[in-house]
Amino acid sequence: MKIMADSIPTEAEGVKVLLGEPVHRDFFYLYQGNIIYSEGGAQTIYVMDHAFWGRILFLNGTLQFTTRDEFIYHEALVHIPVQITKPKGIKKVLICGGGDFGAARELLRYRDIEKVIIADIDPKVPEIVRKYFPELVPPQDPRLDLLITDAFKFVQNLAEKGEKDFDLVIIDSTDPDIPSGEFVLELSHSLFSPEFHQLLREIAPNGLIVQQAATPFTMKNVLDWTFKTFVQVYGKGEVFCYRADIPSFGGDNAYVLRCPQPDPWSPKREEPAGVKYYTHHVHRASFALPKFWSEVIG
Amino acid sequence: MKIMADSIPTEAEGVKVLLGEPVHRDFFYLYQGNIIYSEGGAQTIYVMDHAFWGRILFLNGTLQFTTRDEFIYHEALVHIPVQITKPKGIKKVLICGGGDFGAARELLRYRDIEKVIIADIDPKVPEIVRKYFPELVPPQDPRLDLLITDAFKFVQNLAEKGEKDFDLVIIDSTDPDIPSGEFVLELSHSLFSPEFHQLLREIAPNGLIVQQAATPFTMKNVLDWTFKTFVQVYGKGEVFCYRADIPSFGGDNAYVLRCPQPDPWSPKREEPAGVKYYTHHVHRASFALPKFWSEVIG
Repeated sequence: MKIMADSIPTEAEGVKVLLGEPVHRDFFYLYQGNIIYSEGGAQTIYVMDHAFWGRILFLNGTLQFTTRDEFIYHEALVHIPVQITKPKGIKKVLICGGGDFGAARELLRYRDIEKVIIADIDPKVPEIVRKYFPELVPPQDPRLDLLITDAFKFVQNLAEKGEKDFDLVIIDSTDPDIPSGEFVLELSHSLFSPEFHQLLREIAPNGLIVQQAATPFTMKNVLDWTFKTFVQVYGKGEVFCYRADIPSFGGDNAYVLRCPQPDPWSPKREEPAGVKYYTHHVHRASFALPKFWSEVIG
Repeated sequence: MKIMADSIPTEAEGVKVLLGEPVHRDFFYLYQGNIIYSEGGAQTIYVMDHAFWGRILFLNGTLQFTTRDEFIYHEALVHIPVQITKPKGIKKVLICGGGDFGAARELLRYRDIEKVIIADIDPKVPEIVRKYFPELVPPQDPRLDLLITDAFKFVQNLAEKGEKDFDLVIIDSTDPDIPSGEFVLELSHSLFSPEFHQLLREIAPNGLIVQQAATPFTMKNVLDWTFKTFVQVYGKGEVFCYRADIPSFGGDNAYVLRCPQPDPWSPKREEPAGVKYYTHHVHRASFALPKFWSEVIG
């Protein structure tokens, strides 16, 4: 039995471990399970089989998703922005990060979406998800392109080429590492910068842009930073925040949305088939924020 | 350093411990902090000082509340039922359990509420809360009565006496212990029974009745049981469910509501002063349930 992610050997396959995930100061989530895959590459990766959560992916010691509740995270990330638009309102989508395919799986439920591009920096994530998390991978689909590339540089190149056609950009990354207001370790650092959003604005001048912004109760500086960045780049009138309770994250996760269309809380399509979390009622409710969140987003 | 509540000596004051709270199979929340009070009485009690959560009360090894987020639990428990009624719609309130005063504190914000009775079985809880959690205790108020009594027997006596005047009953107890569909250990057992609700119906024939029903993601049998009990006793047309994300509980907590008035999702009073969670927008949103919850409550 080992405790804490950084004390697990990176080659730990087949080992039963007690893995502690730091959530906040002196507070951890503790998982007892079997490590079925482990590796130290661009990011440290563990796959754990767990009696309650099913299968769990850890990146850099932090839980990314579980097979038991990833549907909530991905449905909230995708269906809320898509359902704000009328049918045929979204043709071309870019996912920055999202190499786990979960967001793409939800997008491809809409037959009117013509192109979905995933730009993820880590080649290991799609490989591991295909092998260990097949339920996240959508059926073979010619509309989907997976690119292993730094999303920042990819968007920079698109902007330089004058690309302006994206209707929706989804930033589906790890939480940035800002324990003291500074981004330091996480690869997702650059995807939370104003420079990146300036570029997104160029490639999606009238598009919707959504970014996952962590769980504000334990990491409110991520929401604070992300919301301020959105307001700075897109202007306050186009910026919204919504939430979804993801139990393996410990509660409500925040999503920051740039929406140049009025009335984002009103869905404008039929409810998607095959979902387990999203409903039109949930869509409307997602924009109601606890009073204390307003302290964060002003 | 000790791990797991049942390995902590009941006289552990002043000891720094690592306390594991079982959440589900092979899954724990782990708190490192100082035990400043401990006792094994009717219920095992610990009070911990914690760097993130502030001060925590554990009963029988399960976290009851933290000073950092108890306001969410108590505001959702109280303001949603009260705000369903017009001013002067609620004069007499019974709290079953609730010896921590948190629900009473929220109720007494309303000047038109004339009487609040707490009926809690454990004399230790109010005593400890007065000493270690003064922020939960409302200012001295002649409208408040604290009775140390078994709420089941208390309600039985009221019903026998023909009492019919309660406008609101709040069941604010520990989670019942039903890992396998059976109530066994917890003192709150009887407060989840159809027999108890039959008695409540007698003392509050036209009243609102709300019961906290645990976090369905990890304990969905509590919601299932509670909702079915309400439907059986009050009839489906008067039974509703709402939710609030309480981070120290790991996400959305369920509340089951008996409301004989139409339109419980529409608040009918001004927003209360001094709250940190509740807003009218949050009130309406609280009744929007994730699609997978509907599997539980049919």
